[in-house]
Amino acid sequence: MGGGGNSTYGKKPFKRSKSHFADRITADGRDGWPVEAGRYRLVVSRACPWASRALVSRRLLGLENALSLAVADPIQDDRSWRFTLDPDGQDPVLGIRFLSEAYDRRETGYPGGVSVPAIVDVPSGQLVTNDYQQITLDFATEWTALHRDGAPDLYPQARRDEIDTVMAEVYEDVNNGVYRAGFANDQAEYEGAYAGVFRRLELLTQRLEQQRYLVGDTITEADIRLFTTLVRFDAVYHGHFKCNRWKVTENPILWAYVRDLYQTPGFGDTVDFDHIKRHYYQVHSGINPTGIVPVGPELSGWLAPHFREELGGRPFGDGTPPGPVPAAEEIAAAGRP
Amino acid sequence: MGGGGNSTYGKKPFKRSKSHFADRITADGRDGWPVEAGRYRLVVSRACPWASRALVSRRLLGLENALSLAVADPIQDDRSWRFTLDPDGQDPVLGIRFLSEAYDRRETGYPGGVSVPAIVDVPSGQLVTNDYQQITLDFATEWTALHRDGAPDLYPQARRDEIDTVMAEVYEDVNNGVYRAGFANDQAEYEGAYAGVFRRLELLTQRLEQQRYLVGDTITEADIRLFTTLVRFDAVYHGHFKCNRWKVTENPILWAYVRDLYQTPGFGDTVDFDHIKRHYYQVHSGINPTGIVPVGPELSGWLAPHFREELGGRPFGDGTPPGPVPAAEEIAAAGRP
Repeated sequence: MGGGGNSTYGKKPFKRSKSHFADRITADGRDGWPVEAGRYRLVVSRACPWASRALVSRRLLGLENALSLAVADPIQDDRSWRFTLDPDGQDPVLGIRFLSEAYDRRETGYPGGVSVPAIVDVPSGQLVTNDYQQITLDFATEWTALHRDGAPDLYPQARRDEIDTVMAEVYEDVNNGVYRAGFANDQAEYEGAYAGVFRRLELLTQRLEQQRYLVGDTITEADIRLFTTLVRFDAVYHGHFKCNRWKVTENPILWAYVRDLYQTPGFGDTVDFDHIKRHYYQVHSGINPTGIVPVGPELSGWLAPHFREELGGRPFGDGTPPGPVPAAEEIAAAGRP
Repeated sequence: MGGGGNSTYGKKPFKRSKSHFADRITADGRDGWPVEAGRYRLVVSRACPWASRALVSRRLLGLENALSLAVADPIQDDRSWRFTLDPDGQDPVLGIRFLSEAYDRRETGYPGGVSVPAIVDVPSGQLVTNDYQQITLDFATEWTALHRDGAPDLYPQARRDEIDTVMAEVYEDVNNGVYRAGFANDQAEYEGAYAGVFRRLELLTQRLEQQRYLVGDTITEADIRLFTTLVRFDAVYHGHFKCNRWKVTENPILWAYVRDLYQTPGFGDTVDFDHIKRHYYQVHSGINPTGIVPVGPELSGWLAPHFREELGGRPFGDGTPPGPVPAAEEIAAAGRP
């Protein structure tokens, strides 16, 4: 499974579990986990849309130095996410081979799934949270003391109601809707999810026709959450999850919108299409038993001009774009257009 | 499997078998099967690209009255093609439930596969031929006494070398190339087939940029054979067979070319997208174990103007378009755009 809570794939309709470990890392440390530079490690898979929210948010806010990053192999085995991309198959900071070891240190014998994003307390080696719905909101609102100069406000107080509404709709129909389509147990369940995906995408298309971003005139958390699904859409959800009414490249507005974000520092520089495709097509053997990974789709269009700046908008509000990606975090050529 | 000879799907590279029953129905009856109105029955699946060549050819040449038609259920069971769409699950003319019964009458215990297109001799109930490479050429050149007035010359003598060359390339890389991609046993085999599909489609795109049809300025057998793959491309080969560099709808020249043919009487009126999708997605459980059939892609574009007439060309040469589809052969609404 992708991250964001373990999920059931069986006779019952696909249901994404709530995150079990929902402690929050806050400025005041009220759950016992105060925001602190260098103390925590963010564990992601670049394949996973839920984890990728945290990758984008961390980049936009300039948290790379304060919060280090572990990237799991996109291919899980029966012990779930593993650090087989690292020397000796071991995370160099946490000294563990499987993310599950951090879960075990937090709660022995925890029966649930192992998911990303996960934040681990480096001194104790314990998992702090895998709450994919809360982690990025806390980056935006609790980690402010560690933000870079010029960091944007991704969850502006005055717009939160509207952002929350849009994010809830996007979650239900799009972020999770593609999974409900892909992991449906029968034709009716699939068709219901498929209809919801495209109904919502049509509504979002209308919304984005005359405005550059989803809420207000700046990039917010809502854009991050739509981006992480749209950037994967043609590569995996279209074919593998059968969300194939049209490709995003066939919808001029959504295609320009997601390309605009992709070309914005902090978005596309976190995306690894190679990890994305190999994860979905090789891990979900119930959908793709051959394990063969499609060569397509053609990616060159991601770098084409989008002309969305003609709609105005101030991407970073009163802030500035993030600097370059840390050298150790650059995406390999195989994962880029 | 689709028709066109049984095929192996296992550890060896996908290989399409030659047709076992290669008798020819000819004007002079030299194989014992003379062309004769009302004597034979054409058995097809509308899902199958190899059988669909014969459907198009029969329509263009006006052979509907001379050669009757049996349409098999797109979903095969372990006895292969069956007449479960007909009352009592039995072909009303041949009186059989499975196409295999006509094979058995021809050769007891024949160990090969049962494929469409098949032509059955009605008086004896015996299979005459399942030679998908020869059947349509014989329609064009041997069945001439039964052609309608105004039937086009689909295999003109002066152009045969060029038609044969184009058809051989299209067969290897496109018609059969998509199957080699979809039924590949490993990543390398798939990638080789995929590369061949798109290399050939790029070459065909160049060829079709300034000329309306593949060979000369009229519709020939070469167009029929490219059409039957292209019309299925986005619906099944793109996702199910992982031929996903781009959709045909994303290639303006091929998309206009195939739409032009689709809108030409005798082509689109033989195509049932519902049969096509259900066959591929429900029969190939090794590729799509869930059996879920995608709702997409959006089909409305098939009826949009193509503007290919601006390139000139005389679709039927000195002939005329075929008349309307016989009422009993009309495609159900579920199969049309």
